[in-house]
Amino acid sequence: MAGCDLSGVKLKPLLTDLLAGRTAALARAISLVENGRPGFEELLAALHPRLGQAHRIGITGPPGAGKSTLAMQLTKAYRARGEQVGVVAVDPTSPFTGGALLGDRIRMEDVALDEGVFIRSMATRGSLGGLATSTREVCDVLDAAGFDRILVETVGVGQSELAVSGMADSTVLVLVPESGDGIQALKSGVMEIADVFVVNKADRPGGDKLAREIDVTLGFRQGSAFRGIRAHHGLDLAVAGRAPVRQTESADPWKHPVLLTTASKADGVERLVAELDRHHAWMTGSGELSARRRRRLAARTREVVDRAMHRWVWHSTQAEAMVNERLAEVASGRISPYELAGEIVAAVKEGVRV
Amino acid sequence: MAGCDLSGVKLKPLLTDLLAGRTAALARAISLVENGRPGFEELLAALHPRLGQAHRIGITGPPGAGKSTLAMQLTKAYRARGEQVGVVAVDPTSPFTGGALLGDRIRMEDVALDEGVFIRSMATRGSLGGLATSTREVCDVLDAAGFDRILVETVGVGQSELAVSGMADSTVLVLVPESGDGIQALKSGVMEIADVFVVNKADRPGGDKLAREIDVTLGFRQGSAFRGIRAHHGLDLAVAGRAPVRQTESADPWKHPVLLTTASKADGVERLVAELDRHHAWMTGSGELSARRRRRLAARTREVVDRAMHRWVWHSTQAEAMVNERLAEVASGRISPYELAGEIVAAVKEGVRV
Repeated sequence: MAGCDLSGVKLKPLLTDLLAGRTAALARAISLVENGRPGFEELLAALHPRLGQAHRIGITGPPGAGKSTLAMQLTKAYRARGEQVGVVAVDPTSPFTGGALLGDRIRMEDVALDEGVFIRSMATRGSLGGLATSTREVCDVLDAAGFDRILVETVGVGQSELAVSGMADSTVLVLVPESGDGIQALKSGVMEIADVFVVNKADRPGGDKLAREIDVTLGFRQGSAFRGIRAHHGLDLAVAGRAPVRQTESADPWKHPVLLTTASKADGVERLVAELDRHHAWMTGSGELSARRRRRLAARTREVVDRAMHRWVWHSTQAEAMVNERLAEVASGRISPYELAGEIVAAVKEGVRV
Repeated sequence: MAGCDLSGVKLKPLLTDLLAGRTAALARAISLVENGRPGFEELLAALHPRLGQAHRIGITGPPGAGKSTLAMQLTKAYRARGEQVGVVAVDPTSPFTGGALLGDRIRMEDVALDEGVFIRSMATRGSLGGLATSTREVCDVLDAAGFDRILVETVGVGQSELAVSGMADSTVLVLVPESGDGIQALKSGVMEIADVFVVNKADRPGGDKLAREIDVTLGFRQGSAFRGIRAHHGLDLAVAGRAPVRQTESADPWKHPVLLTTASKADGVERLVAELDRHHAWMTGSGELSARRRRRLAARTREVVDRAMHRWVWHSTQAEAMVNERLAEVASGRISPYELAGEIVAAVKEGVRV
C-alpha cells in the first residue's frame, strides 16, 4: 500500500509518538493535517485502521447559544470519568467573531491545562480542500491518538459546507429561549439534523415554552414520517455527500430528547451526558453507527478525489497556462469564462490521452 | 461559440426579456443560475459581453453590525438618484439566523416594492459549485440586466469561501463600537480587505474611539507597507483565487476613509455614498478596477473548470462505481479513503486514455 509508505517523509517517528500518546506529536500531526503539508495524506492513510474508537459529538446552534460553554461542561464531565477529550471549534464567520472566541478560550481555561484535553480552533487558512474536510481529518487524528470523546463545535448546518451532521456520530442542537429559533428551526429543516435537542440558558424566560414546542413538533414527526422528512430535505444526502442511504430500520427508533440546560451553572449537563451515552448505545445496537460511518468514509473518499483532481488540473496540466494566456480575450468580452473553461476541460482530457 | 448556442434550451426568449428589463425574466434567470439548472452556464456565457456596467459593492462585517440596514439606506440613496439597485444577501450561518433575516426583510420593506430594486437572499441549497460561485453568478445576471449598483452583503471575510472582496469592486467593512472588533480586526488582517471603513451604530459609546483606532492603524499601514501586508496575508491571492497580482502602482494611492454612521437614522449615509463614488472613480482612473475584474474573471474560469471536472468525474467516469464497490474494504480498515482515492484518480486518468 503506497499510501502507508511513510519512510520518504519521515512520518514514522511521528506516527509512533502519536500512537504512544505524546502530546507534542499530536500537536505536530494536527498542524501537518490542518495545513495540508507534504505527507499529510500518507499520515491519515496510516491512521485509518486505528479509527472508530472515539465517540464524535457535534455541537451546533446559532451564535451566542452557549455552545462553547456547553462543550467545556461536557469536557469536565467526561474528564471526571477519566476519559480523554478532544475539542475542535470551527467558525466560518471568524475572524469577525474573534472577540467571542477569545471569550470562549477564557471559559475553556478550566480544562485547557488538563493533559487529558486537547483543544483546537480551526482557522480558515491553509487547507487544500476546504475547512470541512480539514476539520474531519483533524478529528481522525484525535481518534487515532486515543481520545474517547471528540467534541466538534460549529455553526454550520443542513447542507452547508460545514454541516456538523457529516462529522459526528451524535449531533446536539443548542437553542436559546429568546432567539425565537424554535419556530425558524421547525420551518427550515434544521431540526432533522439533531439527535439531541438542548434549550440552553434555560433559566431565562421562554425556555420551557421552546422545549414544549420542539417536543410537540417531534411528536408529529416521530417514526417514519420523521425519516421521510429527513429524506425530503436531502439531509442524508448532505451527510453522505451523495447517495442517500436508508436509515437502518429498527424496532425501537430513536426518541429525540429535548433537554433544558444552563451551561454556565452546569445545570442539566449530567442528563446531557447520559442522553449522549444512550444515543451512542442506540447507534451501536441499531447498526446506525456503522451505517453513518460508512457514509462518512464514502464522502471522505470523494473529497480526497476532488482534492487530488483539483491539484492535478492546476499543477500538472496546461490549465493554468491557458487561463493566463487567454485572460485578455475574456476581459475584452470576446470569450466568456464558461467557454474558456470548456476549452480547458477539453484540453485537460485530451492532454491525458497523450 | 458553442456556449452561446441557446436554441436547444430555449434560453433565447429569456435572454431577450432579461436584457429588455422585464422583472419576471430577471427572477427566472436568477433562479436558473442559483439552482444550476440545465442551460445556466450557456445563459451566463451569453451575458458575459454585457457585464461591467454595474458598480459592485461588498458589505461585510460581524453579525449584528447593521449591514442590512446600511444596505437598505444605500439602496434608498441610489434610488433617489434614479439608479437601479440589486441586493444579494448571503449568510453562511443561515438557517440559524433565519430570525435575523426575517427582521432584515421587514427593514427592507421600504424598498422591496420598488420596481427599481431587486432583492435576493442566497440559500445554501442547490448550487453545483458552492455558494460563493453562485453568488457571483447571480451578480452577473443583475449586472447584465442593467442594474447600476449591486450590493452584496455577507459575513464571509479574508480567505473564506464567501470572501466578499472577491465579488466586489468596492468593499465596505462595517464594525460597531461595542463589539471590540477594532483590535481583533487589526490583528487578524480583516482590515486589508476593506476599501471603506464604517463604524455603524455610532450613536453608541465608543464609536469615535474605534474610528480613531482604525485611522491610526491605517496611518501606519498606508502606502507600500499596506500593500505589503495585503500580500503577506495572501489577500490578493484570496481575491484572485490563485496568483497574486500586484496592485497597480499609482501616484495617488487610495486613502481609506473611516466613516461614522447610524444606519437606523440614515446618519452618515450620504457621506458613504460619496466615498463609494470617489472609490469607484479612483478604481477606474488608477486602472485598479480593470485589474480587479481581470482577477475575478481568472478566478471564475478556474471555478467553472473545477465544477466541470467534478461533474465529469462523478457522472461520466467509473469513480462513483469504484467508491460503492470498495466501500466495504474501506469500512473494514483494509484500505484507507486516501488509497482508494488514489486508485480512483489513477483509473479516471487511465479511463480518459481509452
